Amino acid sequence: MTLTECLNSTNLNQSGRDAYALVERLYPMFRSLTGAGFRQSLDVLKELIPLETHAIASGTAVFDWTVPDEWNLRTATIRNAAGDTVVDFKNHNLHVVGYSVPVRATLTLGDLLPHLHSLPQQPDLIPYRTSYYTSAWGFCLTHRQLESLRAQDGPFDVEIDATLAPGHLNWGECVLPGRLEEEVLISTHACHPQLANDNCSAVALSAMLARLLAPVERKYTYRFLFAPGTIGAIAWLSKNQANAKRIAHGLVCACVGDAGPTTYKRSRRGNATVDRAAECVLRDTGTPFRVEPFSPYGYDERQFCSPGFDLPVGCFMRTPPGKFPEYHTSADDLNLVRPDALGDSFGKLLRIVHVLETNETFVNQKPHCEPRLGKRGLYNATGGTSPVDTQMALLWVLNLSDGSHDLLDIATRSGLPYATIQHASNLLAATDLLAPSDMKTK
Amino acid sequence: MTLTECLNSTNLNQSGRDAYALVERLYPMFRSLTGAGFRQSLDVLKELIPLETHAIASGTAVFDWTVPDEWNLRTATIRNAAGDTVVDFKNHNLHVVGYSVPVRATLTLGDLLPHLHSLPQQPDLIPYRTSYYTSAWGFCLTHRQLESLRAQDGPFDVEIDATLAPGHLNWGECVLPGRLEEEVLISTHACHPQLANDNCSAVALSAMLARLLAPVERKYTYRFLFAPGTIGAIAWLSKNQANAKRIAHGLVCACVGDAGPTTYKRSRRGNATVDRAAECVLRDTGTPFRVEPFSPYGYDERQFCSPGFDLPVGCFMRTPPGKFPEYHTSADDLNLVRPDALGDSFGKLLRIVHVLETNETFVNQKPHCEPRLGKRGLYNATGGTSPVDTQMALLWVLNLSDGSHDLLDIATRSGLPYATIQHASNLLAATDLLAPSDMKTK
Amino acid sequence: MTLTECLNSTNLNQSGRDAYALVERLYPMFRSLTGAGFRQSLDVLKELIPLETHAIASGTAVFDWTVPDEWNLRTATIRNAAGDTVVDFKNHNLHVVGYSVPVRATLTLGDLLPHLHSLPQQPDLIPYRTSYYTSAWGFCLTHRQLESLRAQDGPFDVEIDATLAPGHLNWGECVLPGRLEEEVLISTHACHPQLANDNCSAVALSAMLARLLAPVERKYTYRFLFAPGTIGAIAWLSKNQANAKRIAHGLVCACVGDAGPTTYKRSRRGNATVDRAAECVLRDTGTPFRVEPFSPYGYDERQFCSPGFDLPVGCFMRTPPGKFPEYHTSADDLNLVRPDALGDSFGKLLRIVHVLETNETFVNQKPHCEPRLGKRGLYNATGGTSPVDTQMALLWVLNLSDGSHDLLDIATRSGLPYATIQHASNLLAATDLLAPSDMKTK
Repeated sequence: MTLTECLNSTNLNQSGRDAYALVERLYPMFRSLTGAGFRQSLDVLKELIPLETHAIASGTAVFDWTVPDEWNLRTATIRNAAGDTVVDFKNHNLHVVGYSVPVRATLTLGDLLPHLHSLPQQPDLIPYRTSYYTSAWGFCLTHRQLESLRAQDGPFDVEIDATLAPGHLNWGECVLPGRLEEEVLISTHACHPQLANDNCSAVALSAMLARLLAPVERKYTYRFLFAPGTIGAIAWLSKNQANAKRIAHGLVCACVGDAGPTTYKRSRRGNATVDRAAECVLRDTGTPFRVEPFSPYGYDERQFCSPGFDLPVGCFMRTPPGKFPEYHTSADDLNLVRPDALGDSFGKLLRIVHVLETNETFVNQKPHCEPRLGKRGLYNATGGTSPVDTQMALLWVLNLSDGSHDLLDIATRSGLPYATIQHASNLLAATDLLAPSDMKTK
Repeated sequence: MTLTECLNSTNLNQSGRDAYALVERLYPMFRSLTGAGFRQSLDVLKELIPLETHAIASGTAVFDWTVPDEWNLRTATIRNAAGDTVVDFKNHNLHVVGYSVPVRATLTLGDLLPHLHSLPQQPDLIPYRTSYYTSAWGFCLTHRQLESLRAQDGPFDVEIDATLAPGHLNWGECVLPGRLEEEVLISTHACHPQLANDNCSAVALSAMLARLLAPVERKYTYRFLFAPGTIGAIAWLSKNQANAKRIAHGLVCACVGDAGPTTYKRSRRGNATVDRAAECVLRDTGTPFRVEPFSPYGYDERQFCSPGFDLPVGCFMRTPPGKFPEYHTSADDLNLVRPDALGDSFGKLLRIVHVLETNETFVNQKPHCEPRLGKRGLYNATGGTSPVDTQMALLWVLNLSDGSHDLLDIATRSGLPYATIQHASNLLAATDLLAPSDMKTK
Repeated sequence: MTLTECLNSTNLNQSGRDAYALVERLYPMFRSLTGAGFRQSLDVLKELIPLETHAIASGTAVFDWTVPDEWNLRTATIRNAAGDTVVDFKNHNLHVVGYSVPVRATLTLGDLLPHLHSLPQQPDLIPYRTSYYTSAWGFCLTHRQLESLRAQDGPFDVEIDATLAPGHLNWGECVLPGRLEEEVLISTHACHPQLANDNCSAVALSAMLARLLAPVERKYTYRFLFAPGTIGAIAWLSKNQANAKRIAHGLVCACVGDAGPTTYKRSRRGNATVDRAAECVLRDTGTPFRVEPFSPYGYDERQFCSPGFDLPVGCFMRTPPGKFPEYHTSADDLNLVRPDALGDSFGKLLRIVHVLETNETFVNQKPHCEPRLGKRGLYNATGGTSPVDTQMALLWVLNLSDGSHDLLDIATRSGLPYATIQHASNLLAATDLLAPSDMKTK
């Protein structure tokens, strides 16, 4: 099956519902940078796609960083003097500060308070806090819970039964070989606990994209990476410098399930093919979208676009991190993520991949004057698009196919949809008028 | 006589009236891609300018095309059962579909209808239709005429007495040699029958421009081309590849007589000197104008700007094709074209030519600090322009004449009119301060 | 002392008051292109800074110009028939046309009028007029004075007791050597008589800047030039062609004391480092400012940016010449210039110099992925700026420090204040993360 057929036959409503079901499964799992919950999440993905799990030992140096100890949690509770459990991570994973060291103590409220985190401005939400690189313990709770603790008699029994010990950091990779060794990287951070949009949404969509591409003829080799944020990308880059050099196009995916418009953040290069592809796809939708310049703050594009790599990797999102009020709180839940938004994001991802796969530089073989379209059956040729657009697209492709413009350039300069330009190039390439350029596509 | 003197002494009102008179003569002639009417039109031009007629035989291969058979028409009528002539091309050339094959038949209205073309939305206008590359016949008529046929008793006698047989395709060329072998091409399509703006207007203005330039000292060689649209330009390019290489600047002229603002469509290169010249001239008029990017749809710039040639040829128009409601209908008549619009277009064409002729790159011979203008009589020097502008123009020319800016660059960057800049360069070149650059003007 | 310490410890209110006091001293002195008053003004500056006075003899050829005779004036009066002095240059220096030749005559009003200059539209102001290169004499007076002359009985006794004879043209230079031979030029015209904003304001501020920089560690060598307008800059360039080649950055300063917003006029190059520095400093103030493109009209940037030199010299002003109604009249007085505006201009000049001194190109020494800031004490590092900005600035400096972006580039692209970016670079350069590039800063 070709990707074009696949694109045309995909029901995005169904894809959205499937993705949502996957988000529902991933959402409650107890994930962190390391540990059983992270591996359990990868296991869910393995049901869908051929995923290899990689492990790197705690203490391993990865560039400027060291792989941390593995963290596993059994219990995290606060009980009041009456013996009632007033906070329990079993009610919500966010209740425990990530990477908390073990503790078992009876504390006055005054001694406990420095270990409690709440959001006074959003009193019903539990914040998300971690302490990866500083030895500490703590609980997160709603501000109303915190206020109710103040009304209770102490002392409080706190228990965090956790292990923080040498083990492994894991990531999952799904590699789908293509005709070319050059790779398309799709990377999602998969470490966040019980946050639906950030980033179960993108983990689910990436897995679905891998599943869809697995049986399709591919030009590029695709590498899907499900790794813990920051340290996972750094570990992967550290161990895959040869593979990194093969990355021709890349996307970091995150927060793809909320109702906001799609946001594309450009790679550090600013005009990489993936940047042009994403912007053209979003333009062609005719619906609102945002394009942001690169900044060295965000998700793992920070690592892929560090100056030593400077890879052509952009970031595909709906509402960017920190820009939605539910961000990094318990309100980033299964209500924030919507099947229709997931389906819409999936369709756009598919189209970007389709552009990357089909974008090519052709050379007009009859470049002196216009060739006769009629005698090749191309006069008033139609396709999925309007005849007028197709006719204009044929003229644009012939005019600009001088070996220095790829189809994306032609779509951009002509203002015509990429699909129309690509359809026209197919019609022309089936005649004697158009041949692929020997030049590499940009 | 110099072109500048010529420019200053030309009465554009009179030019507009002269051009209109020429449009009146050309308008009723029965033109098509080939045939007697086309040659008759060239004969009118020969009264004004030294025009050579070229012929190329039917069947000759020209790039991807073949020169068609020659078409000549004697009769094209529809008569009703009562013997009344209800449609006759003698009433309007547009009544017959161009390149109709001969036919003599008696048909019911039902059988006739597929051969009739009208405009239901513009019921009083006759459309313009051709069938150059498909063997067919037909009539064009107003929608009211078509409706009246429906009210009459059939059958109808149709007669198209035409010959469509091997012969020749013709074009006219007027070449005015200049000091340089490099050429300025002015190309107009001359094949349209009884359409005043499209393109009797431009045929007339181009001929008048050639007449005006004939006795003038010229830097460039000028080539005026009057050819059938598309196939004529293709045939000319096919037979003139060496000449095409000499084209330094070019304009396709079309639809220059309507009341709309002037439109300049850039060459494929987008920043050719002719593009900069046309935009500067239009800017300097201080009246509304439009500049459009290149697109591979329009008039014969399609051929000159095909990727195998990529010539610096833009398109000079008033309202572009398809953008005025009279386009390709019988309403494109002698009322649509106006003497004042023709005069205005003529003035702008002349100014563009004047810029091309005078644009030069100079080198300031005293480039260290400002030279003293006073001791050379240039302090508060004036000219056709205000003293303040002249003084500023002198400073701009001196400052930017470092061998890498031509006068057009200086006019654009300074915001001063080209004429003021050029006047200042003349004043300076008459002193020891400015010398022509050895570098070729861009 | 470092410039940064100096910048932080400078009280701009006090600087403004000091500058104003200096303007008050310079304002009444009788200056012209040459002569005792010009030298007297330099003597005032010598009290503040190590200034060398240079002299060039009348008649010396300097590029296309000749150094004029020296002009000194003792008396310039008009007396009426009653013997009353009705115009006397001792009341205002502007009363005499600069470079007037000596005259002693009794004239009717009719014969006197061609020698009188007034401003009918600004009847209470005395205009500023000179006749440097044409032998003439004249008086300037308010239009009300001129009208009162008409009501008086003539004839009038006029006396201009002046010498216009071979002598010298002078300028002052203050050179502060730095670690580099490359120079920063600060140039002000110092020839205008009794005009406060144009240019006592800039003479005073430049002198104060020299005084401030004298005890500071400097990267660049600084050259402050106080010369007569036009001919002074030309004479300096003529005699200092080797020094001119060393000018890495330059500013012409003029009209820096009025209440208008700061205006920066770009160098001819348009994107020189001094242009980027000035625009970044003005952007960072968060208050209104204007940036103008280069034009070959204005102050001595005309000479520094002539095509034979094309030096990276911009022009720092508040309201540009000709754009304030008091320009070149007696209303350009001690009321037009304000201590607060002088202080504000001084602060901006200091910041531009600070940017030039500190702007550098660094290379991230750990360019593969982000380095760990925490283990170097840089996580949530703060400084003079907000912690969030500092954190972002650290990331930007690390990300863009690939040897091809200087700190100004990073400040511009990130949108963060230069000071924040520079602070971040200092923090990073103190660790193993950042090292200076071997490449020269642009």
